[in-house]
Amino acid sequence: MQIALVLYPKFTLLDIVGPFQVLVDVPGNDVVFVASNEGLVIDHTGRSGLVASARLGDVPNPDVVVVPGGLGDTELDASVVRWLRDVHATTTWTTSVCTGAIYLAAAGILEGLDATTHWARKERLEQLGARYVAERVVERGKVITAAGVSSGIDMALRLVEHMHGIGMAELVQLGIEYDPQPPFDAGSPAKAPAEIVELARAGLADQLSDEAVREVVEHVRSAS
Amino acid sequence: MQIALVLYPKFTLLDIVGPFQVLVDVPGNDVVFVASNEGLVIDHTGRSGLVASARLGDVPNPDVVVVPGGLGDTELDASVVRWLRDVHATTTWTTSVCTGAIYLAAAGILEGLDATTHWARKERLEQLGARYVAERVVERGKVITAAGVSSGIDMALRLVEHMHGIGMAELVQLGIEYDPQPPFDAGSPAKAPAEIVELARAGLADQLSDEAVREVVEHVRSAS
Repeated sequence: MQIALVLYPKFTLLDIVGPFQVLVDVPGNDVVFVASNEGLVIDHTGRSGLVASARLGDVPNPDVVVVPGGLGDTELDASVVRWLRDVHATTTWTTSVCTGAIYLAAAGILEGLDATTHWARKERLEQLGARYVAERVVERGKVITAAGVSSGIDMALRLVEHMHGIGMAELVQLGIEYDPQPPFDAGSPAKAPAEIVELARAGLADQLSDEAVREVVEHVRSAS
Repeated sequence: MQIALVLYPKFTLLDIVGPFQVLVDVPGNDVVFVASNEGLVIDHTGRSGLVASARLGDVPNPDVVVVPGGLGDTELDASVVRWLRDVHATTTWTTSVCTGAIYLAAAGILEGLDATTHWARKERLEQLGARYVAERVVERGKVITAAGVSSGIDMALRLVEHMHGIGMAELVQLGIEYDPQPPFDAGSPAKAPAEIVELARAGLADQLSDEAVREVVEHVRSAS
């Protein structure tokens, strides 16, 4: 199974590394990072990045596609959108994490379909024709979308189950010791304190510009 | 706060990207990837890697150190061990994820101390003088160790709480939508089916060589 992990400028690192770690050690899986050009693609923080070893055009028939989110969803990488439109016709699974769903929607893949994305970007997803569902992982036929950033781990474990059976998925889960124990219960807007949700929404509305984040942070600090 | 994220050949990508994503967007945190040399450091799969932007010697006084696990713990990077021994004297927090604890132990930091690591490597940790504790995150003074691979997310959220308060930690958790919902309950040896634990132990005993993994996989497939 060829699994194409898509990179584009300002992608979010954990969005794609979660699925990578779940999928890469399963024998038979051939994982490849693809982007419009080969070489280093810088993440949304500007502090890190990953290397694409193939150009999009070099991978015309992937079995599985995973599109991460990022902070670039107001300026989509058009080459990625075109490639997604083409390859989706023959994939076994087309998937996204976080605002990667914006890419799927822009490619016409989510038209009228239930899907999820980062909670703070649901309006944008709906503007592009999808029906937002507030679930961690949404499966509709061969299209699987996952919620914000860290949800790619949950999504990829389901992919392994579909592709290789539950035994393999459990083996991977145990291998990466995925027995999560978040120290706080603030991982979704339904659970986080209302004040924190408002602050996060304010910070994220402007796509987490440094200034917006700093303002939010000052609020949080003065409230602590 | 300068936060040094350590890279060495055959590190595990998710081990360090989990803490990176939690720590990097918090204003005031200056996150830097360090290794014995600048440039790309290849991960344990050989399919990916991260770029070190500084050499260990260029970062002599980090406030926080995070050491990821990897498959190289039978051949430690001696320059990392020496550097850890030096910088630990002045850090505010010295932390590890997964078999990163083997590095801390080799540097003498865990002598007689409670600590955790990947469940399959606890004997190795104890051989090096630490007292293994089967908990997800173990805090003893300024030393924080976390269990296998994915546990770095939980550990880093606690670090943010210690450094910036609970409001900031909740804001980060909501930002990365860390509301984990593993589709199976096989994330620790205490929870996974006994057969899966045995298979994983067999595969991991030989440090996940390709052959060992293939054998385990065939067992799982034939059992499914």
